[in-house]
Amino acid sequence: MQRQIYLENKSWQEGLQLMMEKLAPTCIPVNERIDVRKTLNRITGELVRAERSSPHYPASAMDGYAVRSKDTFGVSEREPRWLGWNEKAVQVDTGDPLPEGMDAVIMLEEVLQQGEKGILIQSPVVPWDNVRSVGEDIVEGEVLLPVNHRIRPQDQGALIAAGVLGVNVRRKPRVGILPTGDEIRTPDTPLEIGDIVDSNSTVIASLVEEWGGAGKVWPIATDRPEELEKALLAMANSQDIIVFIAGSSQGRDDYTSRIIEKYGTLYLHGAAIKPGKPVILGEVKGKPAIGIPGYPVSAFITAQLFLEPWVKYLLGLIKVTPQTLEVSMTKKVFSTLGSEEFVRVKVGKVGERWIATPLSRGAGVTMSLVRADGILRVPRLQEGFHEGETVPVELLRPVEELGETLVCIGSHDLAIDLLSSHLKARGGNEAIASAHVGSLGGILALRKGEAHFAGIHLLDPETGEYNRSYIERLLPERDIALMNLVYRTQGLMVAKGNPLNLTRLEDLTLPGIRFINRQGGSGTRVLLDYLLNQKEISKNDILGYEREEFTHLNVAVAVASGAADVGLGIQSAAQSLGLDFIPIGEERYDLAIPCEFLEDLKMQALIAVVHSDAFKEDVIKLGGYDVRDMGKFIG
Amino acid sequence: MQRQIYLENKSWQEGLQLMMEKLAPTCIPVNERIDVRKTLNRITGELVRAERSSPHYPASAMDGYAVRSKDTFGVSEREPRWLGWNEKAVQVDTGDPLPEGMDAVIMLEEVLQQGEKGILIQSPVVPWDNVRSVGEDIVEGEVLLPVNHRIRPQDQGALIAAGVLGVNVRRKPRVGILPTGDEIRTPDTPLEIGDIVDSNSTVIASLVEEWGGAGKVWPIATDRPEELEKALLAMANSQDIIVFIAGSSQGRDDYTSRIIEKYGTLYLHGAAIKPGKPVILGEVKGKPAIGIPGYPVSAFITAQLFLEPWVKYLLGLIKVTPQTLEVSMTKKVFSTLGSEEFVRVKVGKVGERWIATPLSRGAGVTMSLVRADGILRVPRLQEGFHEGETVPVELLRPVEELGETLVCIGSHDLAIDLLSSHLKARGGNEAIASAHVGSLGGILALRKGEAHFAGIHLLDPETGEYNRSYIERLLPERDIALMNLVYRTQGLMVAKGNPLNLTRLEDLTLPGIRFINRQGGSGTRVLLDYLLNQKEISKNDILGYEREEFTHLNVAVAVASGAADVGLGIQSAAQSLGLDFIPIGEERYDLAIPCEFLEDLKMQALIAVVHSDAFKEDVIKLGGYDVRDMGKFIG
Repeated sequence: MQRQIYLENKSWQEGLQLMMEKLAPTCIPVNERIDVRKTLNRITGELVRAERSSPHYPASAMDGYAVRSKDTFGVSEREPRWLGWNEKAVQVDTGDPLPEGMDAVIMLEEVLQQGEKGILIQSPVVPWDNVRSVGEDIVEGEVLLPVNHRIRPQDQGALIAAGVLGVNVRRKPRVGILPTGDEIRTPDTPLEIGDIVDSNSTVIASLVEEWGGAGKVWPIATDRPEELEKALLAMANSQDIIVFIAGSSQGRDDYTSRIIEKYGTLYLHGAAIKPGKPVILGEVKGKPAIGIPGYPVSAFITAQLFLEPWVKYLLGLIKVTPQTLEVSMTKKVFSTLGSEEFVRVKVGKVGERWIATPLSRGAGVTMSLVRADGILRVPRLQEGFHEGETVPVELLRPVEELGETLVCIGSHDLAIDLLSSHLKARGGNEAIASAHVGSLGGILALRKGEAHFAGIHLLDPETGEYNRSYIERLLPERDIALMNLVYRTQGLMVAKGNPLNLTRLEDLTLPGIRFINRQGGSGTRVLLDYLLNQKEISKNDILGYEREEFTHLNVAVAVASGAADVGLGIQSAAQSLGLDFIPIGEERYDLAIPCEFLEDLKMQALIAVVHSDAFKEDVIKLGGYDVRDMGKFIG
Repeated sequence: MQRQIYLENKSWQEGLQLMMEKLAPTCIPVNERIDVRKTLNRITGELVRAERSSPHYPASAMDGYAVRSKDTFGVSEREPRWLGWNEKAVQVDTGDPLPEGMDAVIMLEEVLQQGEKGILIQSPVVPWDNVRSVGEDIVEGEVLLPVNHRIRPQDQGALIAAGVLGVNVRRKPRVGILPTGDEIRTPDTPLEIGDIVDSNSTVIASLVEEWGGAGKVWPIATDRPEELEKALLAMANSQDIIVFIAGSSQGRDDYTSRIIEKYGTLYLHGAAIKPGKPVILGEVKGKPAIGIPGYPVSAFITAQLFLEPWVKYLLGLIKVTPQTLEVSMTKKVFSTLGSEEFVRVKVGKVGERWIATPLSRGAGVTMSLVRADGILRVPRLQEGFHEGETVPVELLRPVEELGETLVCIGSHDLAIDLLSSHLKARGGNEAIASAHVGSLGGILALRKGEAHFAGIHLLDPETGEYNRSYIERLLPERDIALMNLVYRTQGLMVAKGNPLNLTRLEDLTLPGIRFINRQGGSGTRVLLDYLLNQKEISKNDILGYEREEFTHLNVAVAVASGAADVGLGIQSAAQSLGLDFIPIGEERYDLAIPCEFLEDLKMQALIAVVHSDAFKEDVIKLGGYDVRDMGKFIG
């Protein structure tokens, strides 16, 4: 039961710098010569000079007639002159070479007459008029491209024009990627309980490709140290950089670091970053070796911190500073003192403000990387950021696309996910960033100017009406439109076949029935409390009333996995997990939209989607929805 | 002698829209299913749902001990309890599945004691404490990616975690690219007079690749109409989009448009854009067919205007608006009324202002695309932009890189090109954008705040001194440092072997000797006039005194190509063209740097390069330079 404790906790920058200093003298960029037609996005390994001038002969710059300029001297309007074919005038098109001895071109439209005897001109030309001289574009020997330059299509054009056929570019740095662990499985293996699929190798290989290197995924090594040792040595022989994905569990980082010390040097073992603590930096037989943690988010972030600089270095490049954007935080962000933390955020522009909302922070939450628009770094000696504070975010998507994002904060509904897909399917850049904080949270976000619209379904227990009274009470100064999206059936979600035979709300109090609730402030919770009150059921009699989940789907999952027996939610969520569903009522789900955003083009695109038949049909397919008022504005 | 006249000159937008409307119903995006590991940068062809939840079993979220929560109820500091191994407590690592019947994990550090009889605990846990429940990250059936989404590394990670093995992505649109013309040669063919190398096919194929399609270059078709017809039909059979590179010379656009009308429809023949007029839009056997002009810059711009929308359309995407930047123009830009013009510009940030300088505007000038940082559109009904006017520029390079650009305006010297290469070779983003407008032009640019430094070599004819007196006279209010770069030998450049036997400046007046001059305001011109004056030589006696070139290299080219017999310039230019050189004097070439820029990090990088031995050695290799004061600041 001995566990690995991090002996050193030096800063990751120190460890990386030490590693770079020690290995840089022997690990250097390598060049290879390739056909100019294959050089797109490759990096020049030396400066490239023109091997030929362009144009490589004096060429006509116009459609017209080549002449000797001295044959035109003395010509004027009063003294026009005929120049005879072949001897004194030759018809040329743009790009044609000048005939021997001729040194100027007269434009088509400047000729008074042309006929059998030649052309009649009425003004003189000077030498090289309308002629592109040799080297006007490119001069032989001229520097075309500097070293360490990423070759673009237009660069290839210039190289070809200048007679350059082969270009010395950086050979792509070879990165060996080794997944390790007895529980790790390749993506195409059916999984048993306890198995973990290896998604990290593919992600890292793709990152390497984007940075300009060539990643090669090794077969999974089990936890036998001799197997790991063999793989590391094989990678050291054929690759430029060694990456192994391990993590600290099973004492794995312990024996990998011992192997590294056997064949080279260990520079860093554990770093004060979050997520990503159990990182290893070392050298195996002269090659940089990087140990990446196994959690997907940790793997992504540590690859960017430690692997990207090595790939860029071997390409002759310094890591390019990512584009940052100053955003204001919608929520407080806490961070642990002593660790540098990397928080994934969604970014959108509401009115004139860029705003960011932090996403889930668990290191294992793969989808947070898919949903993230950027990464916010919280420095090691800072406890976090305040709500409303302006902070720099490193972007994961182009800033142009972020400007097209509609920020939706409020209650979760599957129809919002569908709306997002349909909006994207139109082919534009419009997108929806949605944060699920419940209906009341959505209204508060509108009040703070942090959302373009909110999805809400709030029952007023006094009137039995939906939404409007909350808007009037909480946003009295604002002009808010309510557009109906759907009516949805709420009900009890129970296991397939309803084994406990639950039929009505009262059954929640039956002995041993384990309930799973939604968080306070959510519309579903308000509905539940309203119904319990009506039926005079005490919440104290419900086992699990205090267990809360944040979305319909998560409640459904809790029931499907046996963690609970019953939850309250919408039919579509039950349907997508194969659960049985006992309807107990219908509720109105509206989009609350501040009127100042109704004129916005991306909002109009959204409204157009809501009014489309294709969207309506797909919502009906989800089950449990009534679309009778879909898209209707409600007073 | 009949020439093609553009019968219609409808706007390019109208032509493209018409073509899209007619062909869109039959030319639609096509999907193909590929392994998730190969999907980097591909576009989703339908929305992708999770095929498995993640985690797919309840997993420990910590290193610790799995327990039944009900076994811990009633435990407190005063009443600690032993939980026996296997039956009541099982050691688990992060990610391990929970043993059957267990529902919570106690963290390692919360256990009071552990030994042979089990673990001693002093507080209770609730169900699902420290447990990652099924679907906490991803729920089966959840939408992972919308349709028309470019797949990133982190997206692949989520797909694999969610059990998605095959993804329906857009098949890459196939673009056939046909170079045409009797005078066109493949890049690897040695060129004869009149031959033109085909660089356009490679540039277009690379652009297509960057947009997400697959370009295929066809063998060159000669000007026999039946050959062109055969190639167009073959492309229509196997490709999604047909591109032919032709241009209007030899009446080529005339017979291609006739072929198009034979097998389909012609939508546009000639467009009011500059460069790029002779564009053709049509349809051959149901496939979009785009005729691209032959001039490299026209080809690049028309490919972006007409081909990119088609490639993006077949990927299900709308063309992404390019990133624009508001810049202020350093120079007036004239444009022809009636044509939309696309002007290539260099962009840099001097102080707080983004400034743009137009580059050479000839459509054939390949290097202008390499050097350009962006494209400025001058609308059809506008005559241009004023100096100092703020205009939007569409960027060809990332804006982060542009901020690292040092703007150098002034006299041309090969050592500046080398400086630029050495700066780039350091691996950072620092770069030099240099515009050649002569020494006086450089000083004026400093005065207007449009340059970070100027290369100047201005002789004061009264004192025989260099540079300082001009600075004092023209920039009296400014604090300007003068850093010497080189002393350089000026002399007469003559053909190899000096066939006309020229030995001194006086020989320029010999009968029949054709001189080529530099432009007024250039240091070389000032030196020439100073020497002519000293030696009492009349400029009227020099044949060609009024013929001007803008750089040393262009003067050398004029001599090398026989367009002139002699020019005045620097030795390195003569050397790189293999010319003979007759020294007539030495001049001082300094960099004039406003003192406020000396603290700038990129300027410091530049100064470090000037002081490096590697740079000094490379300058010496150029020949004709003395580096005795290189990097020295001169009072």
